[in-house]
Amino acid sequence: MSAIDDLTGELARLPGIGRKTALRLTYHLLKQPPEQSRRLADALRTLSDKVRPCTRCFNLTEEELCVICRDPRRDAALICAVEEAADISAIERAGEYRGQYHVLGGRLSPLDGVTPDDLTIPQLVHRIAAGGVREVILATNPSLEGEATALYVQRQLAGYPLSITRIARGLPVGGDLEYADGVTIAQALSARRAM
Amino acid sequence: MSAIDDLTGELARLPGIGRKTALRLTYHLLKQPPEQSRRLADALRTLSDKVRPCTRCFNLTEEELCVICRDPRRDAALICAVEEAADISAIERAGEYRGQYHVLGGRLSPLDGVTPDDLTIPQLVHRIAAGGVREVILATNPSLEGEATALYVQRQLAGYPLSITRIARGLPVGGDLEYADGVTIAQALSARRAM
Repeated sequence: MSAIDDLTGELARLPGIGRKTALRLTYHLLKQPPEQSRRLADALRTLSDKVRPCTRCFNLTEEELCVICRDPRRDAALICAVEEAADISAIERAGEYRGQYHVLGGRLSPLDGVTPDDLTIPQLVHRIAAGGVREVILATNPSLEGEATALYVQRQLAGYPLSITRIARGLPVGGDLEYADGVTIAQALSARRAM
Repeated sequence: MSAIDDLTGELARLPGIGRKTALRLTYHLLKQPPEQSRRLADALRTLSDKVRPCTRCFNLTEEELCVICRDPRRDAALICAVEEAADISAIERAGEYRGQYHVLGGRLSPLDGVTPDDLTIPQLVHRIAAGGVREVILATNPSLEGEATALYVQRQLAGYPLSITRIARGLPVGGDLEYADGVTIAQALSARRAM
């Protein structure tokens, strides 16, 4: 039954989905109308074909600029730097933030070979150097690497006339911004402090 | 970002996958090479195009007969009746059973409108009436509906010269065969009793 094994194998490659869960999902799909599997297959294809990074902030988008950079009501003088595009969804769900973003594309991790050039830190410095930015909120995760990344970015931006703040540790240390609830994120944003 | 929303929505339709997990999986796929999403999409399409029920036992297969019905080393005089095709995988993982199967396609549930004609009980009776079967093991789940289904099947087969056994309650009552571990399933099979 190679079609079942194939799909089970592919599903089991996803994070948090083990062999048994993958098999259960496969059998579930077999019990649904075939259109459900087709819609899921189409959505997967469209995703990899259409989605790319925003040329300004590296958020994911299907256009040149992402939906946030295109929105004239967002405050372009306020930039929130996050590790991953998924973190933007988490902050947007909190509904408190009205500025723009910058997706760093990860965090500094010398052990894993992730250096400043692997992240979009040079592009962030370039955005700041172009002027018009009043504040950069560093919203990397409250982990060891996240803190180190925030510190590194802060030093890179130290020469520019703006305030650099760090998202408050309302989040549990060692936690992951992507999974935090909206209230915690909102509190952490409002209690941000100067670095 | 409709491509992301589309995929997240489709993933969230799967059992046990909520909105947040779906979003996490989507972002995970975006960070992988596009081939991974393509392979998953292809596996999904192949699944719904190729897989169908075995004409003898209603296990899932890509051929006329499933891999178990085609195997001459399996004992055709011993039939294990299960609710779903997924239950076969669970029993096969236990590695103890050498007979064939019959997938009933669910369990009797008058409240949900599931009657004997909605299941493959007539086809099972037909297999038995054709002769050559020594024993039918009723391996429906140890739930209220599973027991009622086993009892109903036992009554349908009572006139034929064979033994009808029920899988032992080694499984926790109210549990689900699909999620049981191999050792428990093996014990439950070996401790089966005549009905």
